[in-house]
Amino acid sequence: MNEPKSWAPVPAFDEGAAAKARAHQEQLTKPPGSLGRLEELAVFYAGTRGMFPVAPPARARICVFAADHGVTVEGVSPYPSSVTAAMVSNFVAGGAAISVLARQHDIELRVVDVGIATAELPPVAAPKAAFAAHAVRPGTGNLRREVAMTRDEALRAINVGALQAGLAAGEGVELLGAGEMGIGNTTAAAAVVCALTGKEPDVVVGRGTGVDAAGLARKIAVVRDALDLHRPTEPLEALAAVGGLEIAAMAGLMIGGAQQRVPVVVDGFISGAAALVATRLVPGVRDYLCFSHLSAERGHRVVCDALDARPLFDLGMRLGEGTGAALAISLLRAAVRLQSEMATFASANVANRE
Amino acid sequence: MNEPKSWAPVPAFDEGAAAKARAHQEQLTKPPGSLGRLEELAVFYAGTRGMFPVAPPARARICVFAADHGVTVEGVSPYPSSVTAAMVSNFVAGGAAISVLARQHDIELRVVDVGIATAELPPVAAPKAAFAAHAVRPGTGNLRREVAMTRDEALRAINVGALQAGLAAGEGVELLGAGEMGIGNTTAAAAVVCALTGKEPDVVVGRGTGVDAAGLARKIAVVRDALDLHRPTEPLEALAAVGGLEIAAMAGLMIGGAQQRVPVVVDGFISGAAALVATRLVPGVRDYLCFSHLSAERGHRVVCDALDARPLFDLGMRLGEGTGAALAISLLRAAVRLQSEMATFASANVANRE
Repeated sequence: MNEPKSWAPVPAFDEGAAAKARAHQEQLTKPPGSLGRLEELAVFYAGTRGMFPVAPPARARICVFAADHGVTVEGVSPYPSSVTAAMVSNFVAGGAAISVLARQHDIELRVVDVGIATAELPPVAAPKAAFAAHAVRPGTGNLRREVAMTRDEALRAINVGALQAGLAAGEGVELLGAGEMGIGNTTAAAAVVCALTGKEPDVVVGRGTGVDAAGLARKIAVVRDALDLHRPTEPLEALAAVGGLEIAAMAGLMIGGAQQRVPVVVDGFISGAAALVATRLVPGVRDYLCFSHLSAERGHRVVCDALDARPLFDLGMRLGEGTGAALAISLLRAAVRLQSEMATFASANVANRE
Repeated sequence: MNEPKSWAPVPAFDEGAAAKARAHQEQLTKPPGSLGRLEELAVFYAGTRGMFPVAPPARARICVFAADHGVTVEGVSPYPSSVTAAMVSNFVAGGAAISVLARQHDIELRVVDVGIATAELPPVAAPKAAFAAHAVRPGTGNLRREVAMTRDEALRAINVGALQAGLAAGEGVELLGAGEMGIGNTTAAAAVVCALTGKEPDVVVGRGTGVDAAGLARKIAVVRDALDLHRPTEPLEALAAVGGLEIAAMAGLMIGGAQQRVPVVVDGFISGAAALVATRLVPGVRDYLCFSHLSAERGHRVVCDALDARPLFDLGMRLGEGTGAALAISLLRAAVRLQSEMATFASANVANRE
C-alpha cells in the first residue's frame, strides 16, 4: 500500500462556536428543544463555519458529477449508458429534477463531467447551469473483469472534486451539496460499500433505477465477482478497483469542503458511498457532512450505519442528482435563519418559563 | 344530540385529474417512482385542485389561530397564559419561528385571535403579518370543572376558520396551512383526542412545551377528570366540552378549505386534533388534508393512526405555530414544480428504459 501519506489538514469542528449557538437557542422565543433537529442543524452550521453569530448561507451550490461505468455491459441497469450524457444535457438545459429543485431553492447548480463515455454531449441551446469538462477518462473499466480505474486516475478524479470545493469557497459559496449522474453507479457504489464495511453484496446491492429480480441477482453476482477478483480493503484501493469517477470526485468535494470549512450536504446512496471513502481517507471530514435523506436504495442503511449518520428525512426518494441534498439545503437554511432571525424572550418581551 | 344536520358539501377528490398526473409522472426524466412521496404529493395536489395540468401554488397562506385556555389554572404548562398574547405580537412583529419560516418560503402569514384572554395585545410598531380580531370569548373555561365552551361558541369558532378559508380562496390563495398558539392547548387537544379515539389519557397526554414528570402526571389527571365529568363522544360535543377555540377554528379552516378545493396542510399534534374533529364532522375533508410532520408530542402517533395519516417528515419538532406546515408547504411546492417543470423523456430526447 502506498496511500498518500498526508492530506491537507481539516480544521477541527469549532466546539466554541457550537456552544455559543447552543446557548443562543435557549434564548429564542420557543420552548427549549422544540425545533428538534433544526436546532442541531443550526449548531452544526456554526461549528463547521467556525463562528457565532453566523449568517445564514446566502450562496449554496450543488455540484453534480457525471461519469460512466464499464460495468453496464453486465446488464446491471435498465437504462443504456448514453443516458448519462443525455441527462447531463438535461441538467444544463434546466429540465431535470435537480434543475427544478435548485431553481426553487436558490441553489447554484454546477455540472461536472469527470468521465462521461459519450464522445460529444447533446448540445444545449440555452444553458441554465454551469458546466465544467474535467473528464479523467471516458468511463471506468468493467469492475467485474478489470479495475474500474488506476489509483492515479482515482486520485485525479478526487482532485476534480477538490478543485470544485476550492473554487466554490473562493467564490464565496458557504454551503455545498454533492450530486451525481452515472448509469450503472449503484453497482459501483455497492461494491465500494461492501469493500469498506465488510458487508455481503446481498444486503447492500439494491434495485437502483429499477432492475427486476433477475437484474438484481445479476448485480449481486457482479459485485461478488468484483470483490473476489480485486479483494480491495483500503479506501483508495477500493475506490480505484470497484468505484466510479463521480464517486471519487464527490469524495474530493467533501474533503475539499471540510478543508475550507464549507459544510457539504450528502445526497443518498452513491454520495453516501463517496462519504464513506472521504471519511476513511481523512477522518476529520465527518464533522463537515450533513446527511440529507434516507434513500430507498437498499444499501443506504448500511452506509448510514457505517458513518453513524442519521439522515434528516425519508421520502422514499432514490433519484440521486443531488435531489435529496437540495431539499436538505433548504432545511439547513431554515435552521440557520431561525437561529439568526428569531426574537429572544428578552427582545420580544415574552415571559419565559415559570 | 343535535349536531348540525348538514354541512355545505365537500367536492369529491378528482380521481381523473389525479390519474392524469400519475400518468404524466411516468413520462418525466427519472426512473418511475424515484421521487417517492414527492410524486404522491403532486398527484394529491392535482386531485384536490381538480385539474391537470395544474400550476404550482404561487400563493400559500398559513393561518395561525390563537386562543387561551382556562385549564392553565391547573398548572398544565410551564409558561403563563400571558405568553399567548405576547407570542401573537411576536408573530405580527416577525420575530417568531413561524415568521422566519413564512418569510423564507414565501408563505403569507395571517394571525387570527379567536379567543385570547389578555385584554390588550402588546402593540407592534411595524407589523409584518396580517392580524384579524375574531375572538369568540376571552379564553375557554377550565375543562376540568366546566365545559370549555358552549356548542354555539364552538360553532362560532369553527366559523372563524371557515371564514378565513373562504377569504383565502377568494383572494386566490391555492394552498393553506393550519397553525396555532395557545398556552395550555396540548391538554385540550389531548382531551379531544381521547374523547374521539377512546384512547386512555396516559398514552395521549405528553409534555407539551416541557412540563416535568409531576406536571405530566397533573396533565393526565386533569384530562381524566375532564373526560369523567363531561363524557363527550360526538365530535362537536367533545370540541365544546374539552377542546379549544383555536382547535375549533383550525377545524373550520380545514372544512372550508376542502369545500373550496384548497388543500390544507396540517401541522402537528394540536392541528391534528383539529383534523380529527373536522373529518369526524365532514368525512370528505380527509381527502384535502396533507400531514406535514410527526410531532415529538406523545399523542401525535395516536392522532395519525386515527386519521390513517403518514406525516412527510419527523424532525423531532414540537413547537406548533404552523412551523411543520411551513416546511411541508415548501415540499408540496417542490413536488408540484417538479411535476410541472421537469422535461419528459421525449422533450429532452433521453432514452427510456430498454
